[in-house]
Amino acid sequence: VKAAFDGTTVRCGQDGLTLYDQAGFGRKEGNGLKLAPQEALYLLQRGKIKIDDYDFDKLLAVFAEQPNIVRSYFVYRDLRERGYAVQTGPHDFRVFKRGQRPGKGESLYFIRVISERDPIQFSSIIKEVNTAHNMRKQYVLATVDDENELTYYEIKLQTPPHLEPFPIFPSINGTIVGKSTIIHVPPKSQFEEAWFGSRLDDNRLLLSPFETIYLAGIGDLSLKIDMRIISVEDLIQRAQETDTEFLHKLKVYEDLRKRGYIPKTGYKFGHHFRVYSGQKPHSEMLVHAIEENAEMPMITISRSVRLAHSVKKKMLFGCVYSTGIQYIEFARIKL
Amino acid sequence: VKAAFDGTTVRCGQDGLTLYDQAGFGRKEGNGLKLAPQEALYLLQRGKIKIDDYDFDKLLAVFAEQPNIVRSYFVYRDLRERGYAVQTGPHDFRVFKRGQRPGKGESLYFIRVISERDPIQFSSIIKEVNTAHNMRKQYVLATVDDENELTYYEIKLQTPPHLEPFPIFPSINGTIVGKSTIIHVPPKSQFEEAWFGSRLDDNRLLLSPFETIYLAGIGDLSLKIDMRIISVEDLIQRAQETDTEFLHKLKVYEDLRKRGYIPKTGYKFGHHFRVYSGQKPHSEMLVHAIEENAEMPMITISRSVRLAHSVKKKMLFGCVYSTGIQYIEFARIKL
Repeated sequence: VKAAFDGTTVRCGQDGLTLYDQAGFGRKEGNGLKLAPQEALYLLQRGKIKIDDYDFDKLLAVFAEQPNIVRSYFVYRDLRERGYAVQTGPHDFRVFKRGQRPGKGESLYFIRVISERDPIQFSSIIKEVNTAHNMRKQYVLATVDDENELTYYEIKLQTPPHLEPFPIFPSINGTIVGKSTIIHVPPKSQFEEAWFGSRLDDNRLLLSPFETIYLAGIGDLSLKIDMRIISVEDLIQRAQETDTEFLHKLKVYEDLRKRGYIPKTGYKFGHHFRVYSGQKPHSEMLVHAIEENAEMPMITISRSVRLAHSVKKKMLFGCVYSTGIQYIEFARIKL
Repeated sequence: VKAAFDGTTVRCGQDGLTLYDQAGFGRKEGNGLKLAPQEALYLLQRGKIKIDDYDFDKLLAVFAEQPNIVRSYFVYRDLRERGYAVQTGPHDFRVFKRGQRPGKGESLYFIRVISERDPIQFSSIIKEVNTAHNMRKQYVLATVDDENELTYYEIKLQTPPHLEPFPIFPSINGTIVGKSTIIHVPPKSQFEEAWFGSRLDDNRLLLSPFETIYLAGIGDLSLKIDMRIISVEDLIQRAQETDTEFLHKLKVYEDLRKRGYIPKTGYKFGHHFRVYSGQKPHSEMLVHAIEENAEMPMITISRSVRLAHSVKKKMLFGCVYSTGIQYIEFARIKL
């Protein structure tokens, strides 16, 4: 099929309409077909169209001056080679179910193309995923690295379902030591049954800052430093002095505990919490608490997802809004 | 043994000297023994000393008002329980070979204690490791998480040995498309033999920005955009516009290539490069390029080390100095 390039857009005449009818390329315009840059490049490389004065390298070099076109082309090509019909828009591609195509079928994925260095703004991703879910589409991030290799991530909003609540704890006094708290309870106390604390010796259980504040907040633990009673607010204040992330980590900790989950430190996995859904030998999620307006380069998220995957856990970010926590899961997928 | 606490320091009289002689606790002072806070807490918890008016909780609560004492105590206790004699200083502990002790033997490790949130300043760690190596000691970071669990990392300075150099490449022209470069070579070209580029189709090989600049820099590749010849400097300029880390990543890339290694994108592992020492099926190192004055929270490094370990690779940071690259390896160890 002959096509023309006016310096901005590639168009075909009436004979190009077969490209649309048979495989969903382009968008109809008058009697002809208008091709997106990725479509034109793909068809040109495959020898399906010819453009006077432009070979593939030259057309790619022209389009490459626009941001994102090269990487977006690689994603487009990969999706086409996997047998999907793909339409450009709304962000950046709509991918149809296998065997279906524009005008004749339904799209399955919304695909956003980004580079490994692009920052992920969690609040705006959450909005996009919400929109996609409302339209019953899966939201997929296609990331392109410096060698133009592709990785796909499905992004899902999660609300961990409520589990059985923990029993009521007995009233107890604690002594603050640094940021932790010592309580005097024998081994196999109710606290340990609910996976609070780590054992210091046969008499003493050591509660982490989150555990201390959670237990003091639900009213069962009164705290003192050197004979002086200290309030939960004072304790939060103390903790924040050496940890700027403390407050949003605490919110995620409390939310998970209230839902019946057991969050423990995730340090060995490089994240805030490893989370158990009940007293099980293995934790099932890594949860990293982030602020509402948090931003992270994609390569950092890629590291988290890869790590979580290697230890067979889900990777969730807990985004702290004033109204509650929005959990967002990143999972590598093969399309 | 009876000891006294003056509000700052715990001391024993002459009968305390057996603690030093038999197990290397404390430092001699006059006729008696002066104990570091960690030593006093350990001996008190073990019931080896008694202090009027102070039980363990009370002494710990007092010392806990000093920064780092609680976490440092947990490391001290762990090392003692593993059967090591430990002396405080220079940073933070000297650990003796098993069966040896202060005055009678040699220390093996210098141990620095940090919390999971502490920032690691690479340049100052490099200095400390250097000092330790000059004294023929291993440098170990003991990290303490929010639940007072311990993880030990050995830190080593590395200089990857030179491997066989790559052959000379033929002169060739390339077309810049975005940040990558297209060269026209048939499959199994010399470039691919040295693991440069990724294949676009049977005629075209796509070079990444690092590969392009490296090959152009050693003089075998001349580059053009839209008929116009472009210099290596222009290309570096272009790349830096969208990537603030570009320059130090490039320096590490070039250094590794000059040593005969093959760095490829490490995106899938969440780091800058995966590095092959020759044409092998698996890469052996993950290398992350950082600036001379880079700083990173320990939890972030923990994530990197855990990930590298899970894919059986070494985790190296390439610290870019004006005089060259200093590679520094973090490896989790069991003491």
